[in-house]
Amino acid sequence: MEQLKQMIREQGIVLSEQVLKVDAFLNHQVDPRLMQQIGVEFARRFAERGIDKVLTLEASGIAPALMTALALGVPMLFARKQQSLTLTDDLLTARVYSFTKQVESRIAVAARHLAPGERVLIVDDFLAHGQAALGLAAIVRQAGAQVAGIGIVIEKSFQPGRGELDRLGYRVESLARIASLEGGTVRFVDADA
Amino acid sequence: MEQLKQMIREQGIVLSEQVLKVDAFLNHQVDPRLMQQIGVEFARRFAERGIDKVLTLEASGIAPALMTALALGVPMLFARKQQSLTLTDDLLTARVYSFTKQVESRIAVAARHLAPGERVLIVDDFLAHGQAALGLAAIVRQAGAQVAGIGIVIEKSFQPGRGELDRLGYRVESLARIASLEGGTVRFVDADA
Repeated sequence: MEQLKQMIREQGIVLSEQVLKVDAFLNHQVDPRLMQQIGVEFARRFAERGIDKVLTLEASGIAPALMTALALGVPMLFARKQQSLTLTDDLLTARVYSFTKQVESRIAVAARHLAPGERVLIVDDFLAHGQAALGLAAIVRQAGAQVAGIGIVIEKSFQPGRGELDRLGYRVESLARIASLEGGTVRFVDADA
Repeated sequence: MEQLKQMIREQGIVLSEQVLKVDAFLNHQVDPRLMQQIGVEFARRFAERGIDKVLTLEASGIAPALMTALALGVPMLFARKQQSLTLTDDLLTARVYSFTKQVESRIAVAARHLAPGERVLIVDDFLAHGQAALGLAAIVRQAGAQVAGIGIVIEKSFQPGRGELDRLGYRVESLARIASLEGGTVRFVDADA
């Protein structure tokens, strides 16, 4: 997605060979017009998958997931990172390790919001080690629902997440695939459309 | 806002005289079409305020704030509840006590995303004791920016937040104002348009 890659080039900050900071338009300050374009693009790429619901993880996934759900005309559901006092239903949970923050957290969804047989599109802002996507997929399976696809805004293709999700047979669509952050420069995967 | 009040009546769950659960369409599962309507309505109500940016607090504020920012054609910024590893800038912070969760948390915004003189619209999903709105307003003032208004999706008018914000002179617009949750029934403020 060319508009996204252009914003990564212009406003992304390479903090290390592992970490790209995009807090100017994606995960702290958010560009709503770009999110809308991202939503339309995910809806286009997964149009034939019969999506019933979009699932993401708070907080950075909410903006792209919401716009995707709007474009698809379905509800969006975001997993919570910790149990909140009003989330008192039966919970579906998974453990997710964040390599960035170096903490394991429990993510949870109220069971009544995921029905058996529903076709769920998982959307997240980043794919690195794949922990968040795998945790969300585990929750979908616990509900007896199906993972109909995984939509990623920015994939760090040099980290193992994409390979793992491919190996498990998931249909993954990433809007920007980063081959390397070496030398402080963002290099995209050549084949990326 | 009639559509919102109708969804509160139909899908809201009164957990106690203090707590209304709206996790079917606002703060867990999210109705993107309703969020879009909410965004358009806030944009209409604050159209004359010269808004430069919409500010909210993760995670539940993100959906209505994003749609408001889209309708206004400005960026959205969400405060973080804890310092994240990639949020390494100079931070503007405030302490916010959650009566629901009974914990105090530190909320933070990277200083470079709020400029002196900017006119900021604060948007949040709920107004109860006003702690989140007051914390966000404190951050805006630290930046030398101005609070141009406060947009609330659901106001619990029987709790002290609204009165406190009015007393401080803020322009507050709440889309649904709840007078009471007594007897397990949602009663709206009569004057509510």
